[in-house]
Amino acid sequence: MNPVEFIEKKKRGDEHSPEELKDFVLGYVKGEIPDYQMSAWLMAVNFQGMTDRETLALVEVMVNSGEVVDLSHIEGIKVDKHSTGGVGDKVSLILAPLAASCGCIVPMISGRGLGHTGGTLDKLESIPGMRVNLSREEFVSQVERIGVAMIGQTEEIVPADRKMYALRDVTATVRSIPLICASILSKKIAEGIDALVLDVKTGSGAFLQEYEQSRKLAQKLKSVGEEFGLRVKAVITDMNQPLGNKAGNWLEVEESIEVLKGKGPGDLAGVTVYLTAWMLVLAGIASDLKAGEELASRNLKNGKAFEKFLELVEAQGGDVRYIENPEKYRKAPIVKPVKSMVSGYITEIDTELLGLAAVGLGAGRKKITDRILPEVGFVVLKKISEYVKEGEELCIVHAKDERTFEQARGNILKAYKITQYKTSPPPLFYETF
Amino acid sequence: MNPVEFIEKKKRGDEHSPEELKDFVLGYVKGEIPDYQMSAWLMAVNFQGMTDRETLALVEVMVNSGEVVDLSHIEGIKVDKHSTGGVGDKVSLILAPLAASCGCIVPMISGRGLGHTGGTLDKLESIPGMRVNLSREEFVSQVERIGVAMIGQTEEIVPADRKMYALRDVTATVRSIPLICASILSKKIAEGIDALVLDVKTGSGAFLQEYEQSRKLAQKLKSVGEEFGLRVKAVITDMNQPLGNKAGNWLEVEESIEVLKGKGPGDLAGVTVYLTAWMLVLAGIASDLKAGEELASRNLKNGKAFEKFLELVEAQGGDVRYIENPEKYRKAPIVKPVKSMVSGYITEIDTELLGLAAVGLGAGRKKITDRILPEVGFVVLKKISEYVKEGEELCIVHAKDERTFEQARGNILKAYKITQYKTSPPPLFYETF
Repeated sequence: MNPVEFIEKKKRGDEHSPEELKDFVLGYVKGEIPDYQMSAWLMAVNFQGMTDRETLALVEVMVNSGEVVDLSHIEGIKVDKHSTGGVGDKVSLILAPLAASCGCIVPMISGRGLGHTGGTLDKLESIPGMRVNLSREEFVSQVERIGVAMIGQTEEIVPADRKMYALRDVTATVRSIPLICASILSKKIAEGIDALVLDVKTGSGAFLQEYEQSRKLAQKLKSVGEEFGLRVKAVITDMNQPLGNKAGNWLEVEESIEVLKGKGPGDLAGVTVYLTAWMLVLAGIASDLKAGEELASRNLKNGKAFEKFLELVEAQGGDVRYIENPEKYRKAPIVKPVKSMVSGYITEIDTELLGLAAVGLGAGRKKITDRILPEVGFVVLKKISEYVKEGEELCIVHAKDERTFEQARGNILKAYKITQYKTSPPPLFYETF
Repeated sequence: MNPVEFIEKKKRGDEHSPEELKDFVLGYVKGEIPDYQMSAWLMAVNFQGMTDRETLALVEVMVNSGEVVDLSHIEGIKVDKHSTGGVGDKVSLILAPLAASCGCIVPMISGRGLGHTGGTLDKLESIPGMRVNLSREEFVSQVERIGVAMIGQTEEIVPADRKMYALRDVTATVRSIPLICASILSKKIAEGIDALVLDVKTGSGAFLQEYEQSRKLAQKLKSVGEEFGLRVKAVITDMNQPLGNKAGNWLEVEESIEVLKGKGPGDLAGVTVYLTAWMLVLAGIASDLKAGEELASRNLKNGKAFEKFLELVEAQGGDVRYIENPEKYRKAPIVKPVKSMVSGYITEIDTELLGLAAVGLGAGRKKITDRILPEVGFVVLKKISEYVKEGEELCIVHAKDERTFEQARGNILKAYKITQYKTSPPPLFYETF
């Protein structure tokens, strides 16, 4: 395989053979193909796309670039959920213990905050003592013992993705459906699962904002995942406004606890129950979606999901006193409202901008070395279709100082589009594949 | 300037501001922008192109990345010619001394063989003792003294192009019209010239094989060159078969000597006289093309051009005895014909493949460290529209051994398309802008 001819081939729009794709990607992982050839190829893929055969081959070589976790000795169907990310998307925190409390085996490997979107690992780490970097052995043994673990990617799993993702991030080559698809599925396949529910977000706070793009990704994730023998459901859910009301790491844990106790905002509970129900169906625990939703809702109401969450936090070294009494958690120095400058209906929310406001407060990273502040973020008080009066509160911001509060305030006011016309709130779900 | 946003902008198809282009390219030259970001951007440019404003800005920043030669103290119009390269294209060797003999000041900076195409510097270096790596001072003083110098790019001139070109070569991002245009013009502008004739090749042995691409490049070279205050003529010439009959470094010097003595193949002499005539027109030495052609033809016939060539070779340390008696030059160990396997008319020649045959013999480089063999190459005996009988000679190959001869023979036979139908020979020129 001549790397220049390989890149040229993709540039021309021709199809790669599985063999040459393998040589190129493994050559890159071994350091034989330099970053500059990989990034030129990645950009060509951004323009030319990949066929299904190519995407399959890419997933396969990525999976085989590292170790595959073996969970086959654990009884039960191993099922995970992956979301493409959004603002206020704390579904995993609720769903993992909820699904486990219903009998699923949930070996969840999650990521960190990226760009304007939050990350499950950062949220979990806001719980004092909580460890997310378990070894593979600890991970497997915890899944065996309590049916659920939530950790970060280990060094051994899919090194090709780690290396390629870091490069995509700095070369503007992230937003390519086959590359996103391969990145997600290679990690999930290497995790040793049987079934996977995919939550593909769409709208102003999503990674892929346009519906058609989200739809293509959902369909490709399903078809490629199934080729690898996974049971897959792909759901397109709304991200035109934050999910639930809270954004920021600890604030999202707090809101997750509310839902785990059978309370909390309806949109968040609704999406979580829906996605969990599909996990239960894929795992053969529920006969259909309705039965799955009933079981999931029941375990939120009867405390079983919350109990499992406590068990999970304790197993990973987290201080459960904060889960039992979240009000004990330290507050940000500044907790102040952002008030509307106008009266009218909220017609649109630039959710990406809200996410960037959270990053600006310290809830996410601008660069990889930035430290996360677990206590900062904001609580959304008004959402799409609601009426707000001039001077009425839109959000409560939790900030470390006045400067970052003012910055966030500016972005929040800019993110809310307020008009004279009432629109309906966006639906929670669009299509399920 | 955020490099990721910069790359993203080109990927989306938006226009760069001159300022951000400058920051990106200079950042790259300084080593602040890594190769992998530059190569991703170059690939995006290959897909999205560049506006005229962007191309101008790119040329400007490339020129200013290094030193600009000042020839303003030398009287007369400084005029150069640049060809996009082909097989058997030894025009520069004849044209530079010819134009100088007619009164032009010719400060020519050339390149080496690249891919299937030959390079003027490699050809010059086949003359024993000939130096092409003059210092800037030597270069300027020789131009002052004898009106012509032919050298390679110095370290100080357009370092941005050297660095970007090396990267384009290994990332399949060479064939982009604005990038080719910026690469050519930045070097020519930095050379300190007033006028430039561009020979854009088209056809099976050209760098850009499709006519429309060659045409776009010619037009862009002219318009961008003129924006920088150069007088420019861009000529599209044929490269559907080798120019002249000989390919290989010394063989091409030999053929150039023939033309400089008023003999040699008509196509080569014709193209050289045409391009030289435009140089004379741009320099104000000839009133129009016809007068220019007459003057150029005269100086080939009366020995003035040949005299200037001797002067040039001597000035750069070359052994003029070989120019005076080219038959003294050492011969390749193998000099054998390639005979046609069939009878018929030559309808097409895959000239790129012929060029690769020459590279295979050792006339060019497969990798940068390969050593050039000056004496190898081939003499073409049959060209498009000619009839050949089975067993008749197509070419005479000069090879270092039987193995490379056989390889070349295979490629030559493959390159000749022989049919039952007579076609006309391709024209020498297409359009002049």
